[in-house]
Amino acid sequence: MDRARVESILRELKAGILSVREAMARLRSLPFEDLGYANVDTHRALRRGHPEAVYCDGKTDVQVVGILERLSAHHKTVLATRVRPGTAKAVADRLGRSRVHEFPEARMLVVGAMPSPRKGRVAILTAGTSDLPVAEEAAVTAEAMGHRVDRIYDVGVAGVHRLLDKQKRLDRARVLVVVAGMEGALPSVVSGLVDKPVIAVPTSVGYGASFDGLAALLGMMNACSPGVAVVNIDNGFGAGYLAAMLDR
Amino acid sequence: MDRARVESILRELKAGILSVREAMARLRSLPFEDLGYANVDTHRALRRGHPEAVYCDGKTDVQVVGILERLSAHHKTVLATRVRPGTAKAVADRLGRSRVHEFPEARMLVVGAMPSPRKGRVAILTAGTSDLPVAEEAAVTAEAMGHRVDRIYDVGVAGVHRLLDKQKRLDRARVLVVVAGMEGALPSVVSGLVDKPVIAVPTSVGYGASFDGLAALLGMMNACSPGVAVVNIDNGFGAGYLAAMLDR
Amino acid sequence: MDRARVESILRELKAGILSVREAMARLRSLPFEDLGYANVDTHRALRRGHPEAVYCDGKTDVQVVGILERLSAHHKTVLATRVRPGTAKAVADRLGRSRVHEFPEARMLVVGAMPSPRKGRVAILTAGTSDLPVAEEAAVTAEAMGHRVDRIYDVGVAGVHRLLDKQKRLDRARVLVVVAGMEGALPSVVSGLVDKPVIAVPTSVGYGASFDGLAALLGMMNACSPGVAVVNIDNGFGAGYLAAMLDR
Amino acid sequence: MDRARVESILRELKAGILSVREAMARLRSLPFEDLGYANVDTHRALRRGHPEAVYCDGKTDVQVVGILERLSAHHKTVLATRVRPGTAKAVADRLGRSRVHEFPEARMLVVGAMPSPRKGRVAILTAGTSDLPVAEEAAVTAEAMGHRVDRIYDVGVAGVHRLLDKQKRLDRARVLVVVAGMEGALPSVVSGLVDKPVIAVPTSVGYGASFDGLAALLGMMNACSPGVAVVNIDNGFGAGYLAAMLDR
Amino acid sequence: MDRARVESILRELKAGILSVREAMARLRSLPFEDLGYANVDTHRALRRGHPEAVYCDGKTDVQVVGILERLSAHHKTVLATRVRPGTAKAVADRLGRSRVHEFPEARMLVVGAMPSPRKGRVAILTAGTSDLPVAEEAAVTAEAMGHRVDRIYDVGVAGVHRLLDKQKRLDRARVLVVVAGMEGALPSVVSGLVDKPVIAVPTSVGYGASFDGLAALLGMMNACSPGVAVVNIDNGFGAGYLAAMLDR
Amino acid sequence: MDRARVESILRELKAGILSVREAMARLRSLPFEDLGYANVDTHRALRRGHPEAVYCDGKTDVQVVGILERLSAHHKTVLATRVRPGTAKAVADRLGRSRVHEFPEARMLVVGAMPSPRKGRVAILTAGTSDLPVAEEAAVTAEAMGHRVDRIYDVGVAGVHRLLDKQKRLDRARVLVVVAGMEGALPSVVSGLVDKPVIAVPTSVGYGASFDGLAALLGMMNACSPGVAVVNIDNGFGAGYLAAMLDR
Amino acid sequence: MDRARVESILRELKAGILSVREAMARLRSLPFEDLGYANVDTHRALRRGHPEAVYCDGKTDVQVVGILERLSAHHKTVLATRVRPGTAKAVADRLGRSRVHEFPEARMLVVGAMPSPRKGRVAILTAGTSDLPVAEEAAVTAEAMGHRVDRIYDVGVAGVHRLLDKQKRLDRARVLVVVAGMEGALPSVVSGLVDKPVIAVPTSVGYGASFDGLAALLGMMNACSPGVAVVNIDNGFGAGYLAAMLDR
Amino acid sequence: MDRARVESILRELKAGILSVREAMARLRSLPFEDLGYANVDTHRALRRGHPEAVYCDGKTDVQVVGILERLSAHHKTVLATRVRPGTAKAVADRLGRSRVHEFPEARMLVVGAMPSPRKGRVAILTAGTSDLPVAEEAAVTAEAMGHRVDRIYDVGVAGVHRLLDKQKRLDRARVLVVVAGMEGALPSVVSGLVDKPVIAVPTSVGYGASFDGLAALLGMMNACSPGVAVVNIDNGFGAGYLAAMLDR
Repeated sequence: MDRARVESILRELKAGILSVREAMARLRSLPFEDLGYANVDTHRALRRGHPEAVYCDGKTDVQVVGILERLSAHHKTVLATRVRPGTAKAVADRLGRSRVHEFPEARMLVVGAMPSPRKGRVAILTAGTSDLPVAEEAAVTAEAMGHRVDRIYDVGVAGVHRLLDKQKRLDRARVLVVVAGMEGALPSVVSGLVDKPVIAVPTSVGYGASFDGLAALLGMMNACSPGVAVVNIDNGFGAGYLAAMLDR
Repeated sequence: MDRARVESILRELKAGILSVREAMARLRSLPFEDLGYANVDTHRALRRGHPEAVYCDGKTDVQVVGILERLSAHHKTVLATRVRPGTAKAVADRLGRSRVHEFPEARMLVVGAMPSPRKGRVAILTAGTSDLPVAEEAAVTAEAMGHRVDRIYDVGVAGVHRLLDKQKRLDRARVLVVVAGMEGALPSVVSGLVDKPVIAVPTSVGYGASFDGLAALLGMMNACSPGVAVVNIDNGFGAGYLAAMLDR
Repeated sequence: MDRARVESILRELKAGILSVREAMARLRSLPFEDLGYANVDTHRALRRGHPEAVYCDGKTDVQVVGILERLSAHHKTVLATRVRPGTAKAVADRLGRSRVHEFPEARMLVVGAMPSPRKGRVAILTAGTSDLPVAEEAAVTAEAMGHRVDRIYDVGVAGVHRLLDKQKRLDRARVLVVVAGMEGALPSVVSGLVDKPVIAVPTSVGYGASFDGLAALLGMMNACSPGVAVVNIDNGFGAGYLAAMLDR
Repeated sequence: MDRARVESILRELKAGILSVREAMARLRSLPFEDLGYANVDTHRALRRGHPEAVYCDGKTDVQVVGILERLSAHHKTVLATRVRPGTAKAVADRLGRSRVHEFPEARMLVVGAMPSPRKGRVAILTAGTSDLPVAEEAAVTAEAMGHRVDRIYDVGVAGVHRLLDKQKRLDRARVLVVVAGMEGALPSVVSGLVDKPVIAVPTSVGYGASFDGLAALLGMMNACSPGVAVVNIDNGFGAGYLAAMLDR
Repeated sequence: MDRARVESILRELKAGILSVREAMARLRSLPFEDLGYANVDTHRALRRGHPEAVYCDGKTDVQVVGILERLSAHHKTVLATRVRPGTAKAVADRLGRSRVHEFPEARMLVVGAMPSPRKGRVAILTAGTSDLPVAEEAAVTAEAMGHRVDRIYDVGVAGVHRLLDKQKRLDRARVLVVVAGMEGALPSVVSGLVDKPVIAVPTSVGYGASFDGLAALLGMMNACSPGVAVVNIDNGFGAGYLAAMLDR
Repeated sequence: MDRARVESILRELKAGILSVREAMARLRSLPFEDLGYANVDTHRALRRGHPEAVYCDGKTDVQVVGILERLSAHHKTVLATRVRPGTAKAVADRLGRSRVHEFPEARMLVVGAMPSPRKGRVAILTAGTSDLPVAEEAAVTAEAMGHRVDRIYDVGVAGVHRLLDKQKRLDRARVLVVVAGMEGALPSVVSGLVDKPVIAVPTSVGYGASFDGLAALLGMMNACSPGVAVVNIDNGFGAGYLAAMLDR
Repeated sequence: MDRARVESILRELKAGILSVREAMARLRSLPFEDLGYANVDTHRALRRGHPEAVYCDGKTDVQVVGILERLSAHHKTVLATRVRPGTAKAVADRLGRSRVHEFPEARMLVVGAMPSPRKGRVAILTAGTSDLPVAEEAAVTAEAMGHRVDRIYDVGVAGVHRLLDKQKRLDRARVLVVVAGMEGALPSVVSGLVDKPVIAVPTSVGYGASFDGLAALLGMMNACSPGVAVVNIDNGFGAGYLAAMLDR
Repeated sequence: MDRARVESILRELKAGILSVREAMARLRSLPFEDLGYANVDTHRALRRGHPEAVYCDGKTDVQVVGILERLSAHHKTVLATRVRPGTAKAVADRLGRSRVHEFPEARMLVVGAMPSPRKGRVAILTAGTSDLPVAEEAAVTAEAMGHRVDRIYDVGVAGVHRLLDKQKRLDRARVLVVVAGMEGALPSVVSGLVDKPVIAVPTSVGYGASFDGLAALLGMMNACSPGVAVVNIDNGFGAGYLAAMLDR
């Protein structure tokens, strides 16, 4: 349910076509369409002002298709994350290839209109090449919410001059997403170079004592520079979404 | 070093009084005054646009006084966090009682001018009474950076109606800091009620399987609602600082 | 061994057909029929008043079939959990398709009579769609023990209004099973809305810092609301069984 | 706020003295009396049907006294847990020695009437002598809620015959609280001997690899007997409260 | 290298055929035959009085065959543990089917003579059916070292009467190996019933918070009964070997 | 209750003075004398053939004195471990200075007769000087059970020649207790030098990543040499007790 | 970019062909050739004096080939680690079989010239046969950097005489790399035998409580002998690289 | 025992005054002077070429004095680490104030001659002021072994320009010790700026999710730059000792 529908209800209310109670009832009843296996929360757009996203890992193709179909009937733009290749095909088959945009590197689908970037400027940095899928998930999310994204990849702290070379691009951003595995040190360093908020994303990239991202997570939690906050390991979507919220 | 001094150098440069090199040199040499035990980074205000803060835990009173004296010579406002009562007295004795503002509940000192709140609106929530010291550290930090703070304390998820009652105050905020120990569930719930960024602060409040804040930290990392990012356990200062950055 | 057989022994004792010692001997010798690989404890029904269940993970099909065959000779209803699809077929082939009820979503088999629900009212809630298999394991277990189950799925705390909408159904339940992964916050919130016992089931649903259910487990252990107790990660059977015990 | 006050409002509503809105407003405004540092939730009695409790660890004496004073104005019985000896004295001085019952072994205070036990039968077992304070917290909580308690202490699994000797007392209980540190094995064994629900309480008793109760917690989570659920480490209050809920 | 060869060297020394130095040299040079990838320590039999064993996990078939060939040239009995089915075939093909005894349930091979049990009495208990492979590894190891083994399987603590029924067989043993996953409580209980040493073997059987055997390991480390010692998770071989050492 | 009393009952039974039932009753009722706070298990001597021990940490002086008084009425020798200095004095005052032997380095008391060592030979090794208190707890325990102890202290693996120098003393022992903190490597090395069972005791000695003995515990669990079993961190008593059991 | 190219720029500078600024510009612009997905840092050779290496795990074959092609255009020797067999073929197909040296046991490729060993002497030890792949990664790395390597494999602490036998080879080394899984005790022992730096490499070899190398890592961190430093679990490359730096 | 004494024995051997056996015997017997509680290993200087150090934490003053007295009779320079203030006085009283050098910031004593720095150049960096005690332990250790030390303190990654300013001093060092708590990112960054080995020392400085140095330890283990190796948390002595070994 996009804002348009909500507003039309409210305008009918103001025009006297609906009573307050009827307006309330319509608003309330709308969102909770029962799919049996998922209480699709179309209200959230109303409350949060942002599109809905579906986390596909652990859901069957049939469930994913069903949820996306219902959501895309109400939303201009719906995101799907952690999409298996087979699922992408099943969705496209059902919803029409023209409405479904695939981003394989980000393991994402965008159903509906992909907005042209016109807002703000989000810089997304990675420490290494292997952090790319997570960074792309963040980038596509922010772009699907209408934001310009500047990708600055492979600028890890072991070669800090590579990063310093990008100072101008860092300065142009209004919010920065920093994606790093292993020791997770990049957000600290980046935060010391800018006066903008930094969203740190630990990744499960690494081996041995990286313990599937725990080392990077702890490192980022302990970032000695203020202005840094952390999202879950590999949570590119959450980082991109939050960046879009902050990029005003 | 406040911005005024930097600007005067730059204006002298433009007026031809200084060469570019001389300007560069002055800018560079200024900040790194050597205290022997601490490379006080007065540059940071320049790069970050915000006041400096001193983390007092693990530093002797003599070190704290020395660092604050030096920093307050260059900054209008300097924060000190995790201040022991004795340290507060030592600082006030040296720097003058009129310049030192004490916030015992937040365990903080503000040296210099305490700005009157004129910017934005930061809501700070706690789950319980025991989370207060961390919440106050966040609140005083944001206030010292010139922001209005709305304290909404003791609205934990076990009585969710207490929280829903505050919906209007939540809506008025531009950024929310949510402080919680034990299971750390409050940020998830709050984030679902607003379309503003939520900064989650786990606290070491709790016992048994809270493991000094680890349970709350993991809970917040896994917040199922996007728009949430997490800072370190008990890190009220970092949360308040980031909130001030976001509250534009 | 169902209660009927025990009672008939006791009645023969009272009628003088058996001496006390003979009665004792019959009672004692009955249960421990030796399958070689498993000491099938048919006594438990006697002591516990509830049917036996077989945890199939890590057992071969042959072992599962053997144990179920023996148990179902003594019990009206026998449960099998964590059943692989192939195992289900092997059991049905041996014990007869009409006596074996399959619940694929719950990964369970019920061998023998499936009672019609006539007792109490157990509400089973999930935070998300992915928690379904665990919730269904709880639901089928409680139903197999003769209890009515009310499924309230996908009401996670990020959209707390979805949950509040269900207040009436919550109030009707005598005991609530709350299944959640990620941050595991749902039991706390639910417990604050009812004055009934809440059985919390952490699931391994989630990614990154969920650490296979550890975050949810710790979150639930720290639930700030009394009236909550926790079972093992993904242990739907244990939760359903306990709910049936409490639903009087 | 006890039920009486709520009922009087509802009766005034039915009698036409109050409109629905006025009734709603009164109900809503009543509970949240603002102490500044704690949103005392007097509503909870309404929702939960049970007295309020105050966790005193990490609160100052002044805060504890203030909260207890306010709560005891509305409740017949208020519990305080983890009470320091000094706090007990401060509370008694303010609220009157006759209204304050001290239970030093349980580290608890009961403010108001201590009901005479008339309901049900809760058995509380400990594995060892050192688990006593946690067990007593559970026992006093259940007793303060009007339940009979049977204390069966020091029956750890290393001498299983000591436990078997108590079979009759186990059988008489309607719900069992089992408190154990170290390896936390007692709940498994007890649960196999009864057909009643078992609430397991891990304690931080032990040394070395007990890791402050983690070993006992994990042991109990993995109890191989269904019918067992676990509360937080050392959480005697939660166990006693839940036992009272189950003991019907 | 068996003792016979060592003795013949020593006898030649005594007879004057070898000088002390020559004897020393022969003894020293013998054992370290270089396979390139493994310093096969044939000395160990000399020092330890027991046969050699090869842990096959992580070794290629070619490596396993090479090591077993070399060892079996010197030892009457060589054990191989964690043997993949394919490896078993490869070994039998090379060393001759008659010399290679397969124990698939224990995932073991015994190369050479399998002694007829004539020494002592080792009882091996398991808590459940799923602990069998580890228990069999212990049993075959002890049998291959010439000891009588009494298998008492599936006597977990949730049905403690099943265990008490076996008191006589427990009493007959000189040393007990107790194998258990999940909460690992069985060794504590068993140790309280006998006055013999108990070797506890945690297994990775379980799910959820068993964390691959960590819960059982911690439980056993904290066994509140003295006379218990613990070997590594799933280490049936180590337990069987140690039991054989103790069974005198 | 020592064996003498049990035997006298049995002899009266044989002589016809007692019926079997009366004998049973006496045996059963004897041991569980109720101290209120501790079910002193005087039966254990009967079942286990060894003296009783009291773990004093977390017990009040009054409780310790009470338990020791009761136990020493039935046992020739009673051990108390983790004794605070004040407790030692309280015990001696009550039970008589002549009957109470203090071992301050081991933090132990032995109440009753200290047997002269006449059995076997237990070697106790430590890696460093700081492991002494744990080693002494093991040594005094074994000596109180009548065994000869050979102390071989400060032979850690960083100077492996110090250990090799002791080969003869190692060879003379029938069982070895190896006490080590830090990396806990000593048991592996020792076990490779002897063909006797090795009981490994991790200690909480160390700093940083020793994590209170966890590093040593994990190291010992992974000892690559068979013939090693591990007891709890700092559990000198358990090691000494087990060593006495094995030293036949 | 090898040193030759840097020197030619500097010589042109000295000869007056380039201004300082032009020289600076050339130096700066050279290294960051943009591959889109990887900021290949050809500067590093300049700063670090050593060849570049590519960690292939988590990179596609196309990415690996692209990076290696670019790097090998500037470097005489480029290393690739954690190479899948298929990747090796893809690289050889593109860069020419003669320039690509495969080391399957080390899972490595060396692209370009393999230097003949002429520098120093690095000893590489393993505790067991299963540690070989990690040890070979260290060995090939050091050899590719021009160092002589002495492989001393399978000398674990359970048979310490095997190690003592190698004292002479240990003494000849200038730096020692010690690779071990399980309890990770070998570096401590080795360090006590030599007066050279020891680089400890924990491996994920082991089972049960080895927890994927954590036990070995903690063991090595706690090595009670100074002169030991630790690299990441299974990080043979890092150990070989550091050994080459130290072997002067 | 310093080298001089060893050489004199060897010279007597060469001169025919001692037989080889006698020489051997003297060498062997010398070092193990028995203090009862500590096998002081005076051999180590012989094998390792470096002075002995005593870790004082967990040792009584009497033990420390005894060990230092014995060691300083054989060594020119003996180090004591983690010295309590009282211990320092006790040592000076016994060994003579002129021979005992106190370094309170490093919590160290040096007994004997403090060499004038004449060898190499070790740079010691810290991330913050609170890391000073650990850094000083490293510095004093290296100085006591005759090395020049360059202290570069408080150059954490949140202000990376502070570090870049020190490039020349970094380049002058032959080995670098980098001490950091919190996220432990400094070693990675430093290692990228130099081509010298970096010894990383995690410290327990930090709060919340630093978990007593674990975050820093994991961060450093995962340093994405080769040429870094890690010592134990807070182990300044080990780092300084290793640095001295490498600084040739």
